[in-house]
Amino acid sequence: MAAKFLSEKNLKFLLYEVFDIESLTRFEYYREHNRKTFDMVIKEALKLSRNLLYPVFTAMDRNPPELAAGKVKVHPSVRTIMKEFGDGGWISSRMPYELDGNQLPHLIADACDFIFGAANYSAGVYPGLSAGASHLIESFGSKELFDTYVPNMYAGKWQGTMALTEPEAGSSLTDITTMAEPTDQGYYLIKGQKIFISAGDHDGVENVVHLMLVKIKDAPPGIKGISLFVVPKNRVDGNGQLIPNDLNTSGIYHKLGYRGCPIVQLSMGDKNNCRGWLVGEPHNGLRYMFQLMNQARIGVGIGAASIATAAYYASLDYAKTRCQGRPVSKKDPALPQVPIIEHADVKRMLLFQRAVVEGSLSLIMQCSKYVDMIKILPDDEKEKYRDLLEILTPVAKSYPSEMGVESISQGLQCFGGSGYCDDYPLEQYYRDARIHPIHEGTTGIQGMDLLGRKVVAQNGRAFILFMAEIENTIIMASEFHELRTYAQQLNDSRTKLQEVTQHLLKVFMDRGAEFFLADATLYLELFGIVAVAWQWLLQGIAIRKALQNASNKSDIAFYQGKFVALRYFFGYELAKTLGLAERLLNGDGLTVDMTAELFND
Amino acid sequence: MAAKFLSEKNLKFLLYEVFDIESLTRFEYYREHNRKTFDMVIKEALKLSRNLLYPVFTAMDRNPPELAAGKVKVHPSVRTIMKEFGDGGWISSRMPYELDGNQLPHLIADACDFIFGAANYSAGVYPGLSAGASHLIESFGSKELFDTYVPNMYAGKWQGTMALTEPEAGSSLTDITTMAEPTDQGYYLIKGQKIFISAGDHDGVENVVHLMLVKIKDAPPGIKGISLFVVPKNRVDGNGQLIPNDLNTSGIYHKLGYRGCPIVQLSMGDKNNCRGWLVGEPHNGLRYMFQLMNQARIGVGIGAASIATAAYYASLDYAKTRCQGRPVSKKDPALPQVPIIEHADVKRMLLFQRAVVEGSLSLIMQCSKYVDMIKILPDDEKEKYRDLLEILTPVAKSYPSEMGVESISQGLQCFGGSGYCDDYPLEQYYRDARIHPIHEGTTGIQGMDLLGRKVVAQNGRAFILFMAEIENTIIMASEFHELRTYAQQLNDSRTKLQEVTQHLLKVFMDRGAEFFLADATLYLELFGIVAVAWQWLLQGIAIRKALQNASNKSDIAFYQGKFVALRYFFGYELAKTLGLAERLLNGDGLTVDMTAELFND
Repeated sequence: MAAKFLSEKNLKFLLYEVFDIESLTRFEYYREHNRKTFDMVIKEALKLSRNLLYPVFTAMDRNPPELAAGKVKVHPSVRTIMKEFGDGGWISSRMPYELDGNQLPHLIADACDFIFGAANYSAGVYPGLSAGASHLIESFGSKELFDTYVPNMYAGKWQGTMALTEPEAGSSLTDITTMAEPTDQGYYLIKGQKIFISAGDHDGVENVVHLMLVKIKDAPPGIKGISLFVVPKNRVDGNGQLIPNDLNTSGIYHKLGYRGCPIVQLSMGDKNNCRGWLVGEPHNGLRYMFQLMNQARIGVGIGAASIATAAYYASLDYAKTRCQGRPVSKKDPALPQVPIIEHADVKRMLLFQRAVVEGSLSLIMQCSKYVDMIKILPDDEKEKYRDLLEILTPVAKSYPSEMGVESISQGLQCFGGSGYCDDYPLEQYYRDARIHPIHEGTTGIQGMDLLGRKVVAQNGRAFILFMAEIENTIIMASEFHELRTYAQQLNDSRTKLQEVTQHLLKVFMDRGAEFFLADATLYLELFGIVAVAWQWLLQGIAIRKALQNASNKSDIAFYQGKFVALRYFFGYELAKTLGLAERLLNGDGLTVDMTAELFND
Repeated sequence: MAAKFLSEKNLKFLLYEVFDIESLTRFEYYREHNRKTFDMVIKEALKLSRNLLYPVFTAMDRNPPELAAGKVKVHPSVRTIMKEFGDGGWISSRMPYELDGNQLPHLIADACDFIFGAANYSAGVYPGLSAGASHLIESFGSKELFDTYVPNMYAGKWQGTMALTEPEAGSSLTDITTMAEPTDQGYYLIKGQKIFISAGDHDGVENVVHLMLVKIKDAPPGIKGISLFVVPKNRVDGNGQLIPNDLNTSGIYHKLGYRGCPIVQLSMGDKNNCRGWLVGEPHNGLRYMFQLMNQARIGVGIGAASIATAAYYASLDYAKTRCQGRPVSKKDPALPQVPIIEHADVKRMLLFQRAVVEGSLSLIMQCSKYVDMIKILPDDEKEKYRDLLEILTPVAKSYPSEMGVESISQGLQCFGGSGYCDDYPLEQYYRDARIHPIHEGTTGIQGMDLLGRKVVAQNGRAFILFMAEIENTIIMASEFHELRTYAQQLNDSRTKLQEVTQHLLKVFMDRGAEFFLADATLYLELFGIVAVAWQWLLQGIAIRKALQNASNKSDIAFYQGKFVALRYFFGYELAKTLGLAERLLNGDGLTVDMTAELFND
């Protein structure tokens, strides 16, 4: 039997009690769904995870992909996984019925991605990338492109990817140099190199379909000259047969973790015969790609929260069973040792993990719900949710990523020396999770996106909306006397965040963008803690409501336990905002003034 | 050529300008030494590190020790390393001349360990353990034991270890069950199991000498019944030949990092023929072992600081050469990309690392100097330094360990995706360093040691002395107008630490030990930040003095650069004490009240 890698109870608590997913089914688009179908979807996702993904979690790490004779060989289970995800409709689950999708709300589909990630993060990446790439073709590509590629991607036969990074263009996409030369045959000839492409080649599928950023010859410089192309590994010839498309895998990375999934280097057009097909209009590629990028950033948040969740349950299980030491006040060596979960410091490490992972998941599902609201509401009503989603995306990417690493480190610490050894899964979770603060835009990039773009956009409209959302929650929470202290604490932090934001805007006016953005990463951290405190207060309302009605003993323990995690967050985590605000309000620009020469010694 | 893995300039700044190592040579015990001999020692340590240790840093990780047919095979360079360290007198460097040592001050010997650790942490562990184990025999063992074992350990022919942990006795040494049965032959028969023994067996030496905690049959229960034994892998028979001592390696661990050094499980007395020799008096073993343990804890701090230092220089080098993006205010894509060290957020990550590693190293050398003072001062004067060393040991172990992991993580982040791949050394540093918050007493154990023992001992005498040391530094620093702000900040933090300490003592009175110690880990963190701020202010005094006289351009840049790191520490790191103090002053004991049942869901 698979070990416990997540809490189904907590997942359903969020879906039904906090985010009221059933309310979505009152809208036309989701009217075919109901709690029963949602429960069934969760059940199937759990079944797939327990039977297929979790059993190969370790094996996929220990037998990482290798490149030999130009071919990438992955663990044999990848083929099965792709097939099962294709057959089960998981890759197309968010797509509308008319495109053979299941028209699932994002809330529930993202919850499933969370389940898959908790069972085996690397394994979940393959179908997840195919889903994202398909969606991009569906949104902006022609019917012909759709028909040629998407059905096979939905079926799990072909792998989809996003191919952005190049040797000289990582964080700076402006600088990509992969070129597309037009032909009069409807396709372009592609030439260039891409690096760090997840699932960019492997033998678990028959073909790989890259959604690739490319510059058309003579395009305008910079990001305004980037176009989006479909560039397959094998193209379909006139007879409907797959033939090589002059797209070769030139290298594979050996990584700290996340080893179940290959990351490769690609070389296009070595023989001037790599064909690509334009998606949408020329020079609009980055805008299109941001649809996938934003989705992928939330996806990173989901992945980070899922690994941290699995790590939490592994360390919880260990703490309950491993006996070591005695209570501080009962040191008599004649007494038996106690399970380490009896020690306050171990409980602190477990509560830290619980506060982080359940807070992160809540923030992600908040974003998922916004995606659904944007999908189903009329234009004039959806604008608000679009703004909220925009401002929260860098936070939902970064908070779970950064704090997930910390959380897993505390999980590892619960195991003592055993956590450092591969007899237990913690060392793998620790390695796997470290990718998340990096890929799909580093934490530094997210900080600048938040402060430099999202906060200031449209005179701070999104920020004002975010503040109002928090205020609403505070007002609702204040009706429960058990929550008043926390509502007050959140209000203080919210005010502090406003103060810091105004101060930084003044820095912008006085000293310019460089000083304004110098500590954007700290601002992101502060913002993230406040956002997750908000989510905990939102959960607190649902907890208090539930406790008013709960009679089942285990339900009561669940809600009470969650309430302690809430208290932990407000007691230990929210306090961190003090130091962050202090620094942000008193920044002296030392990181701007520092020069490369002063690092010499 | 070896990459730069540390700053010789900073090391000498600390030795000569901050800690005035030359002042030690005015004392009889160290009078043979002078700056010239110290420089020569540093030079030799660097040479050894560059020529022997650094070149196999990666290879030792990629070819980890394996156990086959009962034998542990390590990288062939280990044999060379042990021989060179033996021949060069590095293992006995701290020992007095009359025992064939070099009678080196701890300050300089610890600086050498730092150099070795920065070049190749795993490699440095082998001779380091031999040095510690030899010292233990020298301090408490008979002349016969010394003569039998120590010369071969000094020569690098035999490996020394410390063997404490057992399957049911990790953090709880009270519970060890390995037994010693007296015989009338002068030895005891040993039976039991030890786990997690670093360098506990390998083919780079001819023998392994375990300094082992064992209970003599019918000993008192608990830690009062623990004795110290020498238990060799091979014992010397009547003819002076080595014969097997019924001590077998029953397992080897596969670890996240620190892979260049084997960690093994030992089984003693499977055939009732494992002989051990008592060191010192029966039942005093834990007290003896604490000599080595305390030294090993400082050693962990050194190791942690050294890995983080190497990681800092690797990321600094990358940041200077990797071009990506453009200044925030000059985004024109026609302009060339700039080295990432030009970006404020990258400079922030580098300054964070520098502030952590140079602050950690300073704290460690402060402790090393205390060790020297204890060695050379008359009894009535040394008491003070003994107290200071006692209270700072858990801090010097934990701060570099915990913050080293964070620091290396930021170093990895500077590399972006490349940091996650094994083409660069960061991923290995990241894995290697994670052992430090665990071994030689976890951070949780250190917190309880600090607050539960060291702070309260002798009515807080050590704590009062520590406060006075800080105050002295503040007074000295206040003479430099450039330091006054920081002196004031440190004074505020010191006051806050006092306030927190008094508050916690009141919690002890009111609610007992369990509540008192519940957040000892947070207390340790707060204490550590204040201690390192103190060390930065101490460095600040030396920096300001140096800048008054410096004329060489590169010297000026060095001191100015260090001063920015000081400002970074006071601006960004010291601010973290606000949240910690807030929590510690308002603890509600939730981690004590939390029950195992409330973690169910």
